[in-house]
Amino acid sequence: RLTALMEPLHAADIADLLEQVGGAERRAIVRLYGREMDGEILTEIDESIREEVIEALPKDVLAEAVRELDSDDVVDLIEDLEEPQQEEILKVLDETDRAAVEQSLTYPEYSAGRLMQREVVTAPEFWTVGETIDFLRREEDLPDQFYHVILVDPGHHPIGYVTLGKLLASKRALALKDITEDSFRTISAWQEEGDVAYAFNQYHLISAPVVDDDDRLVGVITIDDAMAVLDEEHEEDILRLAGVGDESAISDTVIETVRQRLPWLFVNLLTAILASGVIAVFEGTIERLVALAVLMPIVASMGGNAGTQTLTVAVRALATKNLTESNVWRVVRREAIVGLLNGLAFALVMGLVAWVWFDTASLGLVIGAAMVINLFVAAVAGILVPLTLEKLGADPALASGTFVTTVTDVVGFFAFLGLAGVMLL
Amino acid sequence: RLTALMEPLHAADIADLLEQVGGAERRAIVRLYGREMDGEILTEIDESIREEVIEALPKDVLAEAVRELDSDDVVDLIEDLEEPQQEEILKVLDETDRAAVEQSLTYPEYSAGRLMQREVVTAPEFWTVGETIDFLRREEDLPDQFYHVILVDPGHHPIGYVTLGKLLASKRALALKDITEDSFRTISAWQEEGDVAYAFNQYHLISAPVVDDDDRLVGVITIDDAMAVLDEEHEEDILRLAGVGDESAISDTVIETVRQRLPWLFVNLLTAILASGVIAVFEGTIERLVALAVLMPIVASMGGNAGTQTLTVAVRALATKNLTESNVWRVVRREAIVGLLNGLAFALVMGLVAWVWFDTASLGLVIGAAMVINLFVAAVAGILVPLTLEKLGADPALASGTFVTTVTDVVGFFAFLGLAGVMLL
Ligand SMILES: [Mg+2]
Ligand SMILES: [Mg+2]
Ligand SMILES: [Mg+2]
Ligand SMILES: [Mg+2]
Ligand SMILES: [Mg+2]
Ligand SMILES: [Mg+2]
Ligand SMILES: [Mg+2]
Ligand SMILES: [Mg+2]
Ligand SMILES: [Mg+2]
Ligand SMILES: [Mg+2]
Ligand SMILES: [Mg+2]
Ligand SMILES: [Mg+2]
Ligand SMILES: [Mg+2]
Repeated sequence: RLTALMEPLHAADIADLLEQVGGAERRAIVRLYGREMDGEILTEIDESIREEVIEALPKDVLAEAVRELDSDDVVDLIEDLEEPQQEEILKVLDETDRAAVEQSLTYPEYSAGRLMQREVVTAPEFWTVGETIDFLRREEDLPDQFYHVILVDPGHHPIGYVTLGKLLASKRALALKDITEDSFRTISAWQEEGDVAYAFNQYHLISAPVVDDDDRLVGVITIDDAMAVLDEEHEEDILRLAGVGDESAISDTVIETVRQRLPWLFVNLLTAILASGVIAVFEGTIERLVALAVLMPIVASMGGNAGTQTLTVAVRALATKNLTESNVWRVVRREAIVGLLNGLAFALVMGLVAWVWFDTASLGLVIGAAMVINLFVAAVAGILVPLTLEKLGADPALASGTFVTTVTDVVGFFAFLGLAGVMLL
Repeated sequence: RLTALMEPLHAADIADLLEQVGGAERRAIVRLYGREMDGEILTEIDESIREEVIEALPKDVLAEAVRELDSDDVVDLIEDLEEPQQEEILKVLDETDRAAVEQSLTYPEYSAGRLMQREVVTAPEFWTVGETIDFLRREEDLPDQFYHVILVDPGHHPIGYVTLGKLLASKRALALKDITEDSFRTISAWQEEGDVAYAFNQYHLISAPVVDDDDRLVGVITIDDAMAVLDEEHEEDILRLAGVGDESAISDTVIETVRQRLPWLFVNLLTAILASGVIAVFEGTIERLVALAVLMPIVASMGGNAGTQTLTVAVRALATKNLTESNVWRVVRREAIVGLLNGLAFALVMGLVAWVWFDTASLGLVIGAAMVINLFVAAVAGILVPLTLEKLGADPALASGTFVTTVTDVVGFFAFLGLAGVMLL
């Protein structure tokens, strides 16, 4: 009955289902549905539960599932498994497929070499359209997906490509070299997968040949895989900005979740204690004017928010390569001026509020001045911190938030309480 | 000389260049380079500066550029322009192209109908491979991009599709219906573009037929455009989570930037004042024990961070459709338990710190209890607020952050100062 229910579902939806149910239900489904589990479902399953599912599958089902996959999917499936488990899967593949997968695994994790499929369709450029079609009709082992015929020279270097649409629309007698595309980009097998995804999106690539250090064709990356990487890169950014580590899966258990979130909360605790240390310096001032304790979180909070706005825009602009050497000073200047203007606007508003609330004009003046200072500092820190992290080779999404809010807390409390100490007492 | 420099650049890079330079430089480049500006560059230019560039171009260049574009790119180009400007561009198109674009514009903004190209390649299912190839060779006006031949019945309803790879690899005598793909999905022209992008990513679609209310084929969406939408949806989420409005472009001026950021900062000011109101209630308590003013921001800050972690995970899970009716209670329970465990862990740490710092065991007890309460509330609010917004049809990314941090500030201050008032004085 389960099989009948699952039948109309796409592999990706079955995988999502397995991720969404609890651990006990998942094991039950795998036990009952195991024999129907095919390669496509396996590749769709999130890394967080993949190992668990693979271990639960009967050996022959697993072997069958893996044999039907393209090399890129096999690589994706096994790259995170333990060595002995990898071996077990590799040995069910026939020799060429196994060699292809092992070759991919020699490239670093998150590289184009891991993302590419080894199954490619190539032709020499002197072939005619007719010869190429005849070749494709003869060839038994074409990839599941291909969108171009890649033209290679005798040394197997890619020199251009022909879209399948052009091939179909051209007369048999035409030479391939007369119908190649104008724009042609190859990707190095060592390139970072995030950069690959960026290139696909930026240049509207559908598939792109991957080359080794000698510029020889080693595989091809297709846009569906690049799109998945783009999505993962976004997930990484959004989670890192929120201090939730790199990964978070809906199937994570309580323990896994605590383990991911605790470290960043701990870092935040340390920075919060640091900010409290600043307040402690002014204990005497607060003692004499408790209104300061009431108002000080406003200054810090506004700084934190303004800083987060700026740093998020900066992180996104860096990710889309829109913030470059050529415009960095223009953007830094813009952010600084924006910070100053926002600071002045909220100084006015909050100055009036404080004045009315506590019936003390000078208190309004102090909070206004602190607001200008903190929003200006927030803007500058919001843009410079991610830029510096990027320059140092770190991920600007990873720690910017903590840095920037620490700065705005410390500066906010120091400016407000310090000015109050000087001007009010 | 400019033309020579720009020659090797891809249209998308030229567009980025125009976005990254300042306004004055941009106008100079458009003036000098205008005659070389083609349709591809125009479609790559960000909306923030598109109107400005279009207005600066000579009329004949614009007409030439627009005529070479597919209908989806024309739609994208003109949909945000003023009526008279739209008219001017539409009138340079020939009649069928113009009708196609106008048809697309009848669908709502951000719908599949706006995203699709009208140029499609169709065939009846009884055609053979040979007949189809002959047709493609005869046809003058094939789309720039196509990856499938869509099979239609006499009523122009799509009933399946054949990949170009299959078409090329099959014998001429085979019927198209014998080589159709197993999985076949159509997209309604009314569907939201974000859902379209999700479907492409989830089901590894390369192109998908778009149908109207009568299930008749009206166009096709290709994956490169779906990938661009996925990227935009992410941008929207990340910017909304940070309270930076929906859009932010690197070419924005100071004024535009202030106008985007000020409203959310203002909302934050109101909520910060609300939280201060809570502190004001306990002025007397703070007056007698200033250590409370020193420690209270720690409780609020930890709650804000924990809440942000949870809500970000929730917003992401909602965007990827991983948080559904079927697992919502499991996830809510998980978050609540995680909040409690994190609360207990940090209660212990912070309780000890406070005890040692101020040499008062009971102060440690109070901050510990407040920490447990606030981290638990943060977790619950962090998951329930985005879920509720989604349920109400609002974007969970849009206002969750403000709601959740308001809750954690208010609860944090109230729990800590309230408990202190009861237990310490
Ligand atoms: Mg999935
Ligand atoms: Mg595949
Ligand atoms: Mg992987
Ligand atoms: Mg990465
Ligand atoms: Mg693939
Ligand atoms: Mg990244
Ligand atoms: Mg661009
Ligand atoms: Mg096009
Ligand atoms: Mg478009
Ligand atoms: Mg648009
Ligand atoms: Mg949208
Ligand atoms: Mg298009
Ligand atoms: Mg959204």
